[in-house]
Formats: sequence, structure tokens, C-alpha cells
Amino acid sequence: MAVYTDVTEPQLSAFLADYDLGELLSYKGIAEGVENSNFLLRTTAGTFILTLYEKRVAKGDLPFFVGLMRHLAARGLSCPQPVESRKGETLGELAGRPGAIFTFLEGMWTRRPGVAECRAVGGALAGLHAAAADFAGRRPNALSVAAWGPLAAQCGEASDRVEPGLFAEIRRDLAEIEALWPQDLPSGIIHADLFPDNVFFLQGELSGLIDFYFACDDILAYDLAICLCAWCFEGDGAFNVTKGRAMIEGYRARRALSPAEIAALPILARGAAMRFLLTRLYDWLTVPDDSFVTKKDPKEYLRKLRFHRSVASAADYGLDTERA
Amino acid sequence: MAVYTDVTEPQLSAFLADYDLGELLSYKGIAEGVENSNFLLRTTAGTFILTLYEKRVAKGDLPFFVGLMRHLAARGLSCPQPVESRKGETLGELAGRPGAIFTFLEGMWTRRPGVAECRAVGGALAGLHAAAADFAGRRPNALSVAAWGPLAAQCGEASDRVEPGLFAEIRRDLAEIEALWPQDLPSGIIHADLFPDNVFFLQGELSGLIDFYFACDDILAYDLAICLCAWCFEGDGAFNVTKGRAMIEGYRARRALSPAEIAALPILARGAAMRFLLTRLYDWLTVPDDSFVTKKDPKEYLRKLRFHRSVASAADYGLDTERA
Repeated sequence: MAVYTDVTEPQLSAFLADYDLGELLSYKGIAEGVENSNFLLRTTAGTFILTLYEKRVAKGDLPFFVGLMRHLAARGLSCPQPVESRKGETLGELAGRPGAIFTFLEGMWTRRPGVAECRAVGGALAGLHAAAADFAGRRPNALSVAAWGPLAAQCGEASDRVEPGLFAEIRRDLAEIEALWPQDLPSGIIHADLFPDNVFFLQGELSGLIDFYFACDDILAYDLAICLCAWCFEGDGAFNVTKGRAMIEGYRARRALSPAEIAALPILARGAAMRFLLTRLYDWLTVPDDSFVTKKDPKEYLRKLRFHRSVASAADYGLDTERA
Repeated sequence: MAVYTDVTEPQLSAFLADYDLGELLSYKGIAEGVENSNFLLRTTAGTFILTLYEKRVAKGDLPFFVGLMRHLAARGLSCPQPVESRKGETLGELAGRPGAIFTFLEGMWTRRPGVAECRAVGGALAGLHAAAADFAGRRPNALSVAAWGPLAAQCGEASDRVEPGLFAEIRRDLAEIEALWPQDLPSGIIHADLFPDNVFFLQGELSGLIDFYFACDDILAYDLAICLCAWCFEGDGAFNVTKGRAMIEGYRARRALSPAEIAALPILARGAAMRFLLTRLYDWLTVPDDSFVTKKDPKEYLRKLRFHRSVASAADYGLDTERA
């Protein structure tokens, strides 16, 4: 939950004076998003989201994020659309922070995704990759495979406080992942954080995607591997092959996967689990306990990493090998 | 900020099935209120607030609170109105918690109240006292003067960690307050927590009052004394007599203050400062630092207590003694 920066009504009214959004009726900080402060805004023109960008988001990246959302929306992908000021600008400043107003996306994220949701997410992810293909913006992935070694080193021996032997296990695994990491797979803009809380559903249908603040250039199939990690494990830690199959089928229905992409899925999923293990581990070890940020358990991703390490081929994720 | 209990979409949809509120479109946890979990709900019928009552609120008190809000709204006071289910009920259960749905009150609380806001709040408070006069519900004030001694004893010598000598100062002051506390002033239902974040304004006009979860029976003029404490001090700790005068005038324009009530204002204000000093001090000393709850500085109310101790008569709050 997150409202790091509060806003006064005179500040907000002054900000809104640059927009054609009518009179301000109310605004409430909402307990979603971990990087930025978000407010639900009601004006005489409707309901909107105001996002204030906190320091964890690099100001120089904001035109990329906002431009990407506008690009995707123009291609029919359902996501919040940046609202233009009268001057045609989508980024402003409010309460000492960069800020932007977005259209409100109806729908709810699912706390307990089922098979149908996994299929829908696979399809939406492929749709995102396709819609972003002609986006001109570029943003290197600051959390790509090259960043994991330094991140692991920063966690260091302290990692063993989470589980004895963890640091050695990470180093061993990371060496293998780096050696096996694919070099020539199709790349493009990926969401890179399409967890259940970033996908909205309405009456059983996927209604849109949110939170593009990790979007970057990387291997497209790696984005699918992240989603397999984020959506297809059960509460008891077991991988649900039925969900995995549905997600991969949903993806392939909208974008073909090459044999090389299919063959690489296990190592990409291992990498995805390593990436979230490392960032969670780093936060676990460094963020003070009395901070606003709710720290997520790194062990969840350690278990997922171990599962992916044991996988022989994409068939273990439910991939229909007859068809593949 | 507060969302203690999360809700899944199937849980919420099942809960809403008992209401004539159409289809659920979205819900978002909002970062307001410190006692309960609040969600902003959008359905095909409009925008609403869902409140889940956490353990700090006694379940047996809920019919009093919800009944009071309905009573006040029926008498024209602007506040959230409990929405009835098809069975005519206003309290249900959701995610293992008592829950209720309220109409959405437009408006924003003011982070920096001015003289006009203080006058409006005085008027609204008197309107609340008048509107509640024929409400049948009764709820003793669990934080009345009789509760301060035990609360101070629970803080004990640890109080001196906040400031050396604080415990002795509190005990000395409390003995005086108890001895001087008025016995025969007009009583009734008071809000008891009408701080700036519980009063909404829209385009310069007071649009309504929220958060009745401290409402109880007590001395009416004590409610005004709480508001003098909560609204009329400046950031530097000085009491703003202009604001105090406006608030008292606003109150008297809608409900007359007897000479006995006016004479008692300084001791009531001293009691109000003591009450908030003690609850803040208790939280400061007992709530763990890593808790969700943002702890408020007890010293702010220590300074206010010292000011009220120095007050000779209600004229020091700006009261027009010619008129009084």
C-alpha cells in the first residue's frame, strides 16, 4: 500500500487548472502500487487516477512509460491512458513530484487466479508484445540477467540469514543461468511485472493491464516466463500444469513461439525466479522493518527457482509438445 | 492509512448480491481512517464506500454508529448514509469482519484550515448536536474524564521517555482537571473526533462530516473544546484567536451557549488536550514501530495542554465577551 506524498486541495486544483477536467469533487489516496503515490480523483468530468512519481522511478524514464501507455492504448490494448493537459502535455509537477493523470480502468485484480484467467493473461501478454512492436521508445532492462550478479553480491553472506547456504546456492545457480542464457531470441518491449495485481478482470473477462513502470527491452519469451512464475503456482508451492498450459496456449493463440523460444522457456523461467528472488531478498535484508513498504517473502521465489531448476523441457509447463 | 483486511472479488460480489447496487465494476482500498479498512467501490449504480470494521471497534457499538449516521442524514446533516440491503439491513459480514456500505460523500478535507473553515466547522458541530438531540441511541464515552486517570497510570513512568518529568506533570494536571470538571452542563451525542480529516469541503463550502466511530454521550461544549484544539492552533504551536472566535461564533449561530458552558470552555479544552495527549502517548509507548499505524506525536498535545492551562477565560479563545 502506498501514499508517500500527500497533496493539498489548493495544490491539486492548481494542477487541474491546466486540464479540461472540470471541477475537482474529491480525491483519495489509494492503497495500491508500491513505487508511486496514487490517488483516485473525481471531477465533474469523471473518475481518474493521479499518479505522483516517487524517487524510485527515474524521472528520465517517465516519457518512455507514459508514451508506451499512450501507444498501446492507440493500438487497442486496454490500459490507463495518460490525459493531456490543454498544452498537450501528459507529465506535470505536483507537490514537488512529477505527476500524471490517467483514465480510470474499470475492473479488479484477481487474488486467486484460475485456469481461465491464466489463459487470458497469456493472450493479453502476446497482444502487448505485438502492440508494442512499432513503439519507438527504448529502455534497457535495469534488472536483466547482467544485473543479477551484482545484486547477489550486494545481498552477500547476509542471504544466509534467510536460509543457511542460500548465498552459495544463488551463486551456483546464477553461474549456470548466465552460461545458459539465450542470446538470439526475439526481443522487444516487455511488461516485466505482469503479476495478478496488474491485470484487471470484469465479469470474467480481462478488462486491462496496469503498472508499466518496469517495462523495458528484453527477450519477449522472458515476459511469458515471468507470468508462468507469477500466476501458475499454487499456494502450497506446486506448479499447476493446467494453468501453465492455458497460459502458453493463450499466448500462442496471438503470437507464435519459435522452437528456440520454446526450448528456452525453462532457463528463462529459472531466470525469472532468480530475478524476483534477488530483489525480494535485497529488500528483505535492507529495508527497515518500520518502513511503509510491505516486504515480500523471498523464500516463495527460492521454491520457484528450485522447481524451474528441476524442469527438463517446456512440456513440464504444460506445453502441448504434439503441437510444438 | 489503512487497509488491514483484503477482500477478494468473489467475496465482495457475494456480499453485494444482497444489495440493489447493480454490478461491481471496481474496488480500491483507500488510505484513510485509522480504525477500519475502507474501500472505494464503483458499481453500475454509482460510487460507494465499503467499510470493514476491525477489532478496535466493538461489534456491539456498530448499530449505534450506523443508526446515528442514518438519523443525522434524515435530519439533513450531510454525512455518509448507510445503504440498506434488500432485507433492510445496514450491517453485514464480509471477509470475516462486520461490514457496511455507505453513500459516497463528495468533498475534500483541508490540510490547512483557515478562518472560514473554522467558522463552518463550528456551525456544523452545533448542527450535529441539534440533529442528534432526539436520537434514541446511547453510548457512554469510553475516553471521558473518568478514563484519563487509568490511561495515565498505564503510560506510567515510561512517559518520561517522551520528556523528562512528563508523568508528574500529567498527574498534577489531571488532579486539577478532575477537581474542576463541570458536572451539570448540557450533554448529548458528541462527535468527539471532529479533526480536519473528518470534515469535507467542496468549492469553499462545508460538504459534510465523516467518521462517527468515536461518537458518544458527553458534554456538548466539550465537543467544541475538542474542535478548538484540533483546528485553531498554528503549525508553530500558537493558538489563533481569530480562528477560535470564528469557530465559537459559528457554533453560537446555530446553538446558544449558556454562561456556564462559556465559563467552562477553558477547563473543557484542557481536558480535550489531555485526552489526545494521553491516547497519543499510550500509542507512542506501546504500538510497535513496525506497525501499520502511523504514530502521532504526543508532544503536540502537551504544548496545547500547557496553553489551555494558562488560559484565564473563554475570552482568550476569541469569545466576544461583550456578546457573551
